[in-house]
This record gives sequence, structure tokens and C-alpha cells, in this order.
Amino acid sequence: MEDSSARPASPTGLTYVVATSQILGLVVITMMAAWIGQYRGGIAWDSSQLLFNVHPLCMVIGMVFLQGDALLVYRVFRNESKRSTKILHGLIHVLALIIALVGLIAVFQYHKKQGFPDMYSLHSWCGITAFGFYFIQWLFGFYIFLFPGASFSLRSRYKPQHVFFGAFIFILSIATALLGILELLLFKIKDTYSLFVPEGILANILGLVLIAFGAVVGYILTRHEWQRPPLAEELALSMDFKTLTEEGSPTSLH
Amino acid sequence: MEDSSARPASPTGLTYVVATSQILGLVVITMMAAWIGQYRGGIAWDSSQLLFNVHPLCMVIGMVFLQGDALLVYRVFRNESKRSTKILHGLIHVLALIIALVGLIAVFQYHKKQGFPDMYSLHSWCGITAFGFYFIQWLFGFYIFLFPGASFSLRSRYKPQHVFFGAFIFILSIATALLGILELLLFKIKDTYSLFVPEGILANILGLVLIAFGAVVGYILTRHEWQRPPLAEELALSMDFKTLTEEGSPTSLH
Repeated sequence: MEDSSARPASPTGLTYVVATSQILGLVVITMMAAWIGQYRGGIAWDSSQLLFNVHPLCMVIGMVFLQGDALLVYRVFRNESKRSTKILHGLIHVLALIIALVGLIAVFQYHKKQGFPDMYSLHSWCGITAFGFYFIQWLFGFYIFLFPGASFSLRSRYKPQHVFFGAFIFILSIATALLGILELLLFKIKDTYSLFVPEGILANILGLVLIAFGAVVGYILTRHEWQRPPLAEELALSMDFKTLTEEGSPTSLH
Repeated sequence: MEDSSARPASPTGLTYVVATSQILGLVVITMMAAWIGQYRGGIAWDSSQLLFNVHPLCMVIGMVFLQGDALLVYRVFRNESKRSTKILHGLIHVLALIIALVGLIAVFQYHKKQGFPDMYSLHSWCGITAFGFYFIQWLFGFYIFLFPGASFSLRSRYKPQHVFFGAFIFILSIATALLGILELLLFKIKDTYSLFVPEGILANILGLVLIAFGAVVGYILTRHEWQRPPLAEELALSMDFKTLTEEGSPTSLH
């Protein structure tokens, strides 16, 4: 009993809630693709019109789905080594950053080709803030947790800040996506939006599913019992887990 | 030393960060009033045009500033009795709900007078979700924590859910405010927004200050060392604090 609580399998509840988050994330991507494909003419890099559509699709894949999944890595991979889990966390974030960068380039290129001004709307201000913080957070995370230079004491002092800002950036990314949905609707279907046309309803539901994805990911991350317990070998190996063991109090330590 | 950690004065850092949150909250309300007064003709209940402006002002006061402050009550009043703090928490939320309801009535009345349709935009869908959840959360909170019917075991099982949904509703309220700002700008100054006119810049900055308010409140709530420690008399009085003491481990218990 004591042993199984020090190194548990994934709690059953966690498995179901993680599955729900993944379904919601895939529904977000599918609904965005359906919106673009059905109502906005599809996607194409070499069309000055359809180039825009690369933007929302890349942003929900990178800044929402993959960013959210990177946060879940420590809850899902509970019995892998801490180092493998960290590397996976960092790699998913890199992939998310690259896809988001493609989405950003698409919208700036589209504006340039169309002669539209950049960076005037609240959506763009929030978006560039989220992307900028995300990039900086990745650099700090890499330097302090993966680059072999930072001391254990710096790591444990920085960790709560990294976790807080990670959650903040994820939430800001979802809020920015909602702003982007509303902005696109008011640019494209302003006159018919109030008639409850299918495109407006689809996009509104997409917004609610985005919120549900964020809420489920947030629930998984904040539920105390679902935090990753330190493995026995980690406790033996490193002072780095001092703060974790203070909360988890695994019996193997005493 | 041991005694002061069981019943500490407010940590210095906490005081400064709470002060920052209050300044940001007041800046939000001031900027919203300035936007309405300077660019949107001011506020009046009996004008079919200016009635609208009651809506954004009431919503940021109720659903953002007061809701946020109600969440901070347990961090700020550290040495009052748990019951007084609970009552204050409940009362600020009631005040917030009433002010938000006035803001909701204003916008529905405005739509009715102007012949505008209701509830078609993503802003309205998110807003009604946030307000509905907020009302339900208040009812559950009142019934389980204040109404003298619920058992200690029900209270301690419900508490983490109450805290999670409280944070979720607060974040959703801020996201809804951002959507409302963008919607109003695209309705009123769509043609000049991209020219970086002062109204657009003011409203965008208001959006960023709203995000900063939410971030600072979120930081205060999630910082582990700033959680309200149970008072000695509370520990002696009630099983209700079992979960708290497991984390706080005050020396007076042993």
C-alpha cells in the first residue's frame, strides 16, 4: 500500500480526464479546419487570399493544442525518468513554437500582399504578447532546467515561476484565439452574424470548445492528487526534488 | 519563531502585490470610464443610446474587479475568524453579482430599444456562460459553506472544486471583457481602428491592463506560501481544517 502510493500507476480518473482533453483538442482542430474549408475557401500558401487561413489553423495547433499537451506531459508520463519527461516537454513546446511561427509568418505575409496594416487590434496585441512570452519562457526553461549550468537552488527557486507563467501563457493563448475568432467573424460576416447563420454558430461553438479544452487542461494541472510523484531513484539522486518531497512525503525517504 | 509561523503577519511581498492588484483594478475601471466618457458620449439610463454604456462599466466593476477582490479575501484577511472572512467573501460576490445583473439588464434593454438581436456573438455566449456559472457557484458556495446544513466531509470534498471553478469563472470573465472590448471597437470604429486612433489604443491598453489584473490576482492565489494559514483556534475547533493542516503542518497541532 505504501509502496504503491510512492509510485502509483496513473489514477483512473486522470486517464479519463486526459482522454477528454485530447478529444476536445482534436475537436478544436477539426472545427477550425471545417470552418476554413467550408466557409473560408480552404487553405493555400501561394494564394494571396487563402494564405490567411494558414494563420488560425497553425495557431490553434501550436499555441493551444500542442502547448496544452506539453503542460500535461508530467501528469501523463508518471513513471518515465524526470529527464526524459523534461526533454519531451521541451520538444513539444519547440514544435508548438515552430508551428505558431509559421502561422504568424502567414498572417504578416497576407497583410503585406493585401496592403493591410499590422498589429493594431487587441487580438494582435494579445497574440504577440503571448508568443513573445512563450518564446522567452522556453529560453529560460531550456537554460535553467535542461542546459547543464543551473544550480539546484536556482532550479527550485525558478520552478514555481515557470509553472505560473506557463499557465498564464496558455490561458492568454486561448483568450487570444477567442479574440481572433470574433475578429474574423466581424470582418467576414458582420451583416449576417446576428441572423444566427451556420458559420457564426460553428465559430461560436468552436470558441466554447476552446474554453472547455483550457478548463480540462487546467483541471488536470491543478488537481493536487494528480501531480507527478517523484520516483524513488530521483529522491536518492538529487537535491532538486527537495521541494517536491516536502509535499509528497514518500515513505522511502524516512 | 515557531509561533510566528503558525500565525504570521501578512508577508511583505504579499502586501505589495495585493496593492499592485488594487491599482491595476482601479486603472481598469478608470480607463473604462474614460473610454465611455471621452469617446462614447457618457452614460445615462434613460437615453436609448447611452444606456449601452452602463453595460461595460458595470461588467468590469462586478465581474472583474469585485469578483477578483472577493477571491483575494482569504489572502488579505489572514487573522480574522474564518467565518467573518467567509461572510465577507460571500458578500463581495453578492455585490458583484448585483452590479453585473444591472449591466446585463442595461444591454438587453438597449438591444430591445434599438431593435438589435440578442445573444448571437461569441462575446454574449461567453458572457452568459460566465454569469450563469457565477450565479450557480454562489448558490453552491452559500449552501455548502455558509448555510449550516452541510457536513464537514461534504465541505472538504467540495472545497477544491469550488476553488477551481472560482478561478475558471474569473478567467472566463476577463476573456469575455476582452471580447466585449474588441466587439465594441469593431462596431464603432472599424474603419479607423487600423489607423491607430487614440480610442483604439486606449481600449487595447485597457485590454492589456485587464490581463495584468487577472495575472496578478492569479499569482497571489496560486503562490503556496501566501495561502491563509489556519488559526490556532480553528485547528482546535473543527475537523473542517483537516485538509489545510495536512499541508500547513503548524507546530501547535503536534
